[in-house]
Amino acid sequence: MTETLILALDAMGGDQAPDIVVEGAAIALLRHPGVRFRLHGDGGLLKPLVKAQRGLSDAAEIVHTDESVLMEDKPSEAVRRGRKTSMWLAIDDVRKGNAHVAVSAGNTGALMAMAKIQLKTMPNISRPAIAALWPTERGESVVLDLGANIATDGRQLVEFAILGEAYAIALGLPNPSVGLLNIGVEEVKGHDEIKAAAKVLRDSPLEMNYFGFVEGDDIAKGTVDVIVTDGFTGNIALKTAEGTARQFAHFLRLALKRSFWGRLGAFFAAGAFRALSAKMDPRSLNGGVFLGLNGLVVKSHGGTDGKGFASALDVAIDMAESDFKHSIEARLVELADLETNDPDSNVSQEVVAS
Amino acid sequence: MTETLILALDAMGGDQAPDIVVEGAAIALLRHPGVRFRLHGDGGLLKPLVKAQRGLSDAAEIVHTDESVLMEDKPSEAVRRGRKTSMWLAIDDVRKGNAHVAVSAGNTGALMAMAKIQLKTMPNISRPAIAALWPTERGESVVLDLGANIATDGRQLVEFAILGEAYAIALGLPNPSVGLLNIGVEEVKGHDEIKAAAKVLRDSPLEMNYFGFVEGDDIAKGTVDVIVTDGFTGNIALKTAEGTARQFAHFLRLALKRSFWGRLGAFFAAGAFRALSAKMDPRSLNGGVFLGLNGLVVKSHGGTDGKGFASALDVAIDMAESDFKHSIEARLVELADLETNDPDSNVSQEVVAS
Repeated sequence: MTETLILALDAMGGDQAPDIVVEGAAIALLRHPGVRFRLHGDGGLLKPLVKAQRGLSDAAEIVHTDESVLMEDKPSEAVRRGRKTSMWLAIDDVRKGNAHVAVSAGNTGALMAMAKIQLKTMPNISRPAIAALWPTERGESVVLDLGANIATDGRQLVEFAILGEAYAIALGLPNPSVGLLNIGVEEVKGHDEIKAAAKVLRDSPLEMNYFGFVEGDDIAKGTVDVIVTDGFTGNIALKTAEGTARQFAHFLRLALKRSFWGRLGAFFAAGAFRALSAKMDPRSLNGGVFLGLNGLVVKSHGGTDGKGFASALDVAIDMAESDFKHSIEARLVELADLETNDPDSNVSQEVVAS
Repeated sequence: MTETLILALDAMGGDQAPDIVVEGAAIALLRHPGVRFRLHGDGGLLKPLVKAQRGLSDAAEIVHTDESVLMEDKPSEAVRRGRKTSMWLAIDDVRKGNAHVAVSAGNTGALMAMAKIQLKTMPNISRPAIAALWPTERGESVVLDLGANIATDGRQLVEFAILGEAYAIALGLPNPSVGLLNIGVEEVKGHDEIKAAAKVLRDSPLEMNYFGFVEGDDIAKGTVDVIVTDGFTGNIALKTAEGTARQFAHFLRLALKRSFWGRLGAFFAAGAFRALSAKMDPRSLNGGVFLGLNGLVVKSHGGTDGKGFASALDVAIDMAESDFKHSIEARLVELADLETNDPDSNVSQEVVAS
């Protein structure tokens, strides 16, 4: 990369902002010394925080604004009064070409609404989706949509497959396998929307590495590289998995505390437990990516710390350095050709007809 | 209980049937010495297995049949040729009053289809649901539907709340709290169907202990006693949680094996790990219950062993001993009154209108 990579940060987004944003930027700068930041937020708060981090002053420009989006704002409210907020201004940087990617740990709904208004959805994509990396037994898988769209038709699921595939390629997987999340692997199972999407992905000459249906437990197994689902199911699956991991850790602590031998074992195995919690730590895989927009926006967990925010910045940098937009566009051209030549494969129509 | 409790078992259902069924019956008999079994299946196979279990011969009657439902049968196929199958005959026992509850580890779709045909759905219930007990940090919660209905309207979600509440009461919880699974806890979130159901549960004089919306991670936390969702989401949440628990156990084993101190710690903490795996063991919480039918049917995991099948029998015995049918009927009368007096609260209409 010859051009300097610039990240626009919503410095006021997140439960612990702006501290975690500045801390995250400092951590990311150590890993990627060439990047530059534009920090949108309260200059009075930001200046001393940036100064306290060695080397960050030279890499970060503070763009002062008094306003910010609150976690409890409804997306519509945030958008209405939000054009001077740190979140809006960070996205605006991407729109104007002042930055390659915007990152925020703020209100997800507001961020998506503002991103849609400013960056617009890509041509031939109905709606953007939120994707994240899910830790699996075999590594990591891309899962989408995680909550941007609660109702999804077959055509949109195909679009999500295309977006997710491109994201996986951007992360370094050359020919990622793609599965549709369903309640069984047989062809007869599931919603009409899923069946319509499966037909296109299976029969079309898209040359996608389409695996077929996968079930809930296939996510953790890492059966496929990209798991496609609607935003309602994806959000509930993600939070259910987070809850289960926390529950397991809770039971493990209780079980080890209960006896002398358990406590002794825990003492000897402390290093192993640290390795385990690093592996299951949601902070190390932080960063939901908004896919399908004319510009890059990455969402960090609202409750994260500086380390977690730095992970979101890592994701943002990977995305900005990749060529994923072109691979999406190429796929969309294939899909459009397919629909023109074979009206039967128009999944939107199929869903309506069925 | 004065009457002898009789369980009708599909002795040929399950990957390891009939062995696990007979073994499970023997384990359950030790815990509940008064119960009696009617074992439907291949008499030639069953006789020696029953004889080998001390005391079981006196408590079990073998009802011979040559036919059984296969795991790969489609529900419609199973029903068409299935009237002599062990599964059909077990349910038929419940219909005829020869048994109080039927239990099968066979094909779920076929079992539900046969149960609906033979037992019929309860008056004022649109469709039956599958409920199970989910281990949580605070104990166990009832979750439904787990896959009987992939599309669900608001009225059905209210029915599921009533069915789940009654099941929790049958399990010994006097005033169970009920939550609707959603992608956020704010009132504006979610599908129209969920919003319509929330309105009835919140505003109606049903006097249900309605908590509100819960998210995916609330299941493991045990935030509420009964979690209500559609069968698509419920099935994916359940399998995602199972996958995550297995993944965590896998990572734990890997982390402990990696170093000498980890292995030493694991040696000392072996008892604690056994307690943990007992707690997360799906076999100890085996038994999905079909709710909303005029008769009791319990589904055991297909891949379970004798111990797991015995857990399903425990659930069946709890259900058969409870008065849950009457508490459902009382609730349904309340709901019908509500809909008559206040047409606005007719959730089915509301969904159509919105």
